[in-house]
Amino acid sequence: MVCQYGEQLEKLVKEVQPFTANGKVADYIPALAKANQDTLAVSIYDGNSTCFSAGHSSEMFTLQSISKVLTLALALMDHGEEIVFDKVGMEPTGDPYNSIAKLESLVAKPLNPMINAGALAVSHLIEGESTDERLERLLQLIRDMCGRPSVTYNREVAQSEFNTAHLNRSLAFFMKQYRIINEDVDQLLDFYTKQCAIEVNCDDLARIGYVLANKGRNEEGVEIVPFEIARLVKTFMVTCGMYNSSGEFAIRVGIPAKSGVSGGIVGAVPNEIGIGIYGPALDEKGNSVAGMKLLEAISSYYDLSIF
Amino acid sequence: MVCQYGEQLEKLVKEVQPFTANGKVADYIPALAKANQDTLAVSIYDGNSTCFSAGHSSEMFTLQSISKVLTLALALMDHGEEIVFDKVGMEPTGDPYNSIAKLESLVAKPLNPMINAGALAVSHLIEGESTDERLERLLQLIRDMCGRPSVTYNREVAQSEFNTAHLNRSLAFFMKQYRIINEDVDQLLDFYTKQCAIEVNCDDLARIGYVLANKGRNEEGVEIVPFEIARLVKTFMVTCGMYNSSGEFAIRVGIPAKSGVSGGIVGAVPNEIGIGIYGPALDEKGNSVAGMKLLEAISSYYDLSIF
Amino acid sequence: MVCQYGEQLEKLVKEVQPFTANGKVADYIPALAKANQDTLAVSIYDGNSTCFSAGHSSEMFTLQSISKVLTLALALMDHGEEIVFDKVGMEPTGDPYNSIAKLESLVAKPLNPMINAGALAVSHLIEGESTDERLERLLQLIRDMCGRPSVTYNREVAQSEFNTAHLNRSLAFFMKQYRIINEDVDQLLDFYTKQCAIEVNCDDLARIGYVLANKGRNEEGVEIVPFEIARLVKTFMVTCGMYNSSGEFAIRVGIPAKSGVSGGIVGAVPNEIGIGIYGPALDEKGNSVAGMKLLEAISSYYDLSIF
Amino acid sequence: MVCQYGEQLEKLVKEVQPFTANGKVADYIPALAKANQDTLAVSIYDGNSTCFSAGHSSEMFTLQSISKVLTLALALMDHGEEIVFDKVGMEPTGDPYNSIAKLESLVAKPLNPMINAGALAVSHLIEGESTDERLERLLQLIRDMCGRPSVTYNREVAQSEFNTAHLNRSLAFFMKQYRIINEDVDQLLDFYTKQCAIEVNCDDLARIGYVLANKGRNEEGVEIVPFEIARLVKTFMVTCGMYNSSGEFAIRVGIPAKSGVSGGIVGAVPNEIGIGIYGPALDEKGNSVAGMKLLEAISSYYDLSIF
Repeated sequence: MVCQYGEQLEKLVKEVQPFTANGKVADYIPALAKANQDTLAVSIYDGNSTCFSAGHSSEMFTLQSISKVLTLALALMDHGEEIVFDKVGMEPTGDPYNSIAKLESLVAKPLNPMINAGALAVSHLIEGESTDERLERLLQLIRDMCGRPSVTYNREVAQSEFNTAHLNRSLAFFMKQYRIINEDVDQLLDFYTKQCAIEVNCDDLARIGYVLANKGRNEEGVEIVPFEIARLVKTFMVTCGMYNSSGEFAIRVGIPAKSGVSGGIVGAVPNEIGIGIYGPALDEKGNSVAGMKLLEAISSYYDLSIF
Repeated sequence: MVCQYGEQLEKLVKEVQPFTANGKVADYIPALAKANQDTLAVSIYDGNSTCFSAGHSSEMFTLQSISKVLTLALALMDHGEEIVFDKVGMEPTGDPYNSIAKLESLVAKPLNPMINAGALAVSHLIEGESTDERLERLLQLIRDMCGRPSVTYNREVAQSEFNTAHLNRSLAFFMKQYRIINEDVDQLLDFYTKQCAIEVNCDDLARIGYVLANKGRNEEGVEIVPFEIARLVKTFMVTCGMYNSSGEFAIRVGIPAKSGVSGGIVGAVPNEIGIGIYGPALDEKGNSVAGMKLLEAISSYYDLSIF
Repeated sequence: MVCQYGEQLEKLVKEVQPFTANGKVADYIPALAKANQDTLAVSIYDGNSTCFSAGHSSEMFTLQSISKVLTLALALMDHGEEIVFDKVGMEPTGDPYNSIAKLESLVAKPLNPMINAGALAVSHLIEGESTDERLERLLQLIRDMCGRPSVTYNREVAQSEFNTAHLNRSLAFFMKQYRIINEDVDQLLDFYTKQCAIEVNCDDLARIGYVLANKGRNEEGVEIVPFEIARLVKTFMVTCGMYNSSGEFAIRVGIPAKSGVSGGIVGAVPNEIGIGIYGPALDEKGNSVAGMKLLEAISSYYDLSIF
Repeated sequence: MVCQYGEQLEKLVKEVQPFTANGKVADYIPALAKANQDTLAVSIYDGNSTCFSAGHSSEMFTLQSISKVLTLALALMDHGEEIVFDKVGMEPTGDPYNSIAKLESLVAKPLNPMINAGALAVSHLIEGESTDERLERLLQLIRDMCGRPSVTYNREVAQSEFNTAHLNRSLAFFMKQYRIINEDVDQLLDFYTKQCAIEVNCDDLARIGYVLANKGRNEEGVEIVPFEIARLVKTFMVTCGMYNSSGEFAIRVGIPAKSGVSGGIVGAVPNEIGIGIYGPALDEKGNSVAGMKLLEAISSYYDLSIF
């Protein structure tokens, strides 16, 4: 098991550390801009033990787009596949094989739940009488997955994101026009920006990844997420979890993973381990530069690719 | 092993057989239109034995788009990743996560090697002094993979496709304008349509899938395709192997696979088995309706999903 | 002069009347849906006399998109060409002559002031301390043009449009993201929906058209709109005044004109006459079916095409 | 009349001459690259006299895209509006007023006859048993318009363009796939590149513009092009004659005009004069920089805008 060789993991982190210099910390809101460019941390969980590789592993960061896989799981638990995939597609691309150019369809249905439009449509489906109740239900799922009852969200980040979410409002109103969503847009944005602002550390992510890897069950065998949903979520992590680097990432790393602009990445090696990574310096596509390199090194050394 | 339970496989085929009525045989050229709507065949190869499930398994059909994975492997063997992925992308989609609509870039580089434009760019890279020599090199690779030295192409199909390939010519001239390809377009189309017209049966496909599944080696351990290339090819089969149903197929089936409009599908379960399927009745996206259902049933019964 | 032959005009209206049956009254808000499908009215103003052709000419209707030409004039009077065309383009199309497909640029600048995005960007530029003040300034311009001091807006229509303007909000937030607009979106929408709800009759439109036709001056020679701005506005009326029927309308009719989904059309024959038309039954592109036919008949009979 | 003030015209040319330094001579084929960057010539024809303004007016250049208006006229004379506009649209843009982004429709019909795809579809309609006969028919129309029986095409330019017309071949095969055209693509390209290579001088263009301006008749009143077709052609010159600068050109100049990448521009002021301009230094959209400036100066000084 990976955790038996913590020294090797430490060595891989050191090798990859210089890549933190290549990226750029997200700065579209002040709270994210405060992150330390040099940080690189990883945590791996195999159901028995957790192995940390670096001193930064207790640092907290926000989920951002990583939350998309968790709301997707919750929406599927709330409504089932039919209703969820009536609102959002399953495809990394909507292009037929012979299109001479990419096609914008007038159909407003988002392509998949990992792009912002799709994630908004999925969040719209989360049940609850109020934003608080919906958020509480999502937090409960996350607390169950990482076994840390104190998980909550960062109010400052949520507020900043809410204030600057013009593009997400544009997407939401567009979908409201075409009845993909039919709630108040500001209410949806309130929930969405809070979900993105949920704070975790690498250990939390490793345990979340472990539940997804372990057929939806925690280390005690308790089902947190149904088996079919855990599998489905991992599929989206492969086909579109790393923004528009997903194809290359699948080739280079081959581990179902989802990144966020805070610099976090959650990985789930089916039937084996969960991985949490934090490295806030991003490439231009929004993925942690050193984080991806580290996952590539880990996958290669421990032969973790699913392909 | 799957082949020990041939009766179960037979049973799955029978269950799925009615779905052959739902699709439509491709009819854009006469040679394809002659296919029998009801046909459904499967062959599975585990490196020791081959199990057939249905009486149609000796029927020959053309590779069509299945050839895209094989030319990709050969182009990578000829040139390496850097040169190949300078001509063609690695992504199932080129959309950044926050695009409000799909983007056509002026850059003519095809998104990936599984769409026609990408496959044409890859075929352009296959080395050889003449079309005959390039085709012979591809045929040799395929013969090595399926262990049948008599594999060749169907002249009638190739000629028909060559005569009607207006859209592929359009794509090729577009890429010639932007210097993605720089050979004579009719010469490239000649090679491309011949590669698509290579004839196989289900057994051949199962053995091709086995080599891809088995780290590029045949049952005797001889390397036919380097390990890294076999892995890379399987990755593209998951992210874009089933046209624009790839996302849903990954969720429902979870097996790296590539389909063609002849109705063939090749599947490769990493480190386990190769699968060949033939069912010419297609859905509107160009995939065998009953073939996909059969793969779903097989994946579910034998628990073959990689996710 | 056209007004000397009122009987002929009456005859043309009768000939065209049956076309009112072909269209469909806009029904996306209740206030518009109340319009009478059969209505067809025209008013022509030559600076001396006004000739009405039909009994419906006193009916009031809202400007809707016709307001786009008036806010454009006001924004140009407020800021000049440089600032206005920094926010919005001048082209009916943004496609280079050799594009193989239409291109969505990441640049958020709207193509021209006659599409909704462009009109929102133009409205954003209208000066005024408050929505009331901006609206009052626009109303004053319109009152000056049509010489009717009682022109105001319909509160019910404005309110309905405000409540359902999801798509316009989507456009506005998209432009806010890219800093094309930087005011509160709901404030802009409040102004925009009120401007669209300004009520006129055919006589008003004929006089508005006359001012545009008469180099920006009213019948007494008083400059209401500077000459260059009146010319510029007429240019946009030709290249994109009739939604995406502008090209065909220029061929068939050849009169600078702007339509609205209420069924109104304003026409301006340079140096000759202004035309106001009302016919609420629309074609699928949003233009008055009978209104366009009537303009075609008038243009042909009186030889008014500018081409 | 303009020609009474030749000195003034000379003065305008001198004022505009420095703008020749701003553009760039087309160099995609050697024959065009040979053009002299400094050249600026204009010729104006009023039906009685021709006034030249500059010493370069005898220089020959190829029509290039200017030929699009002439093949359009001939195709309409051959087939009438219904058949021509079944193959090609009438609109400068195909976007509905509320599209959030530009739309590529699967319908392959080109938007209008002034883009390359549309011009290819129009050329396809020109009648004739052979390329020679079609070309001869087009040349005869042009000879009739400019009253110079020796008009012919430049073989070197035609051959160069034929050899490098990858993008036009791409467009043609795309339209062949969708049955917009159904002749041999190389045969169509042979005709198309020859039509683009027809050689004229400024005087010729001025006389061609005069016929279009003068309701399709030459100075002796002989109908060369039917009235309706001459009007229709001028309409397209306004809405899409200057590539994607047409909107701005209509605002700044207001004269129906069509440019080509050789640096030629033909102008037609309805019921007044024809204008021929040659200035090979182009802006990045493919229009003669100094040529457009000169037309703006002429339009302004002689008050020629149709708006």
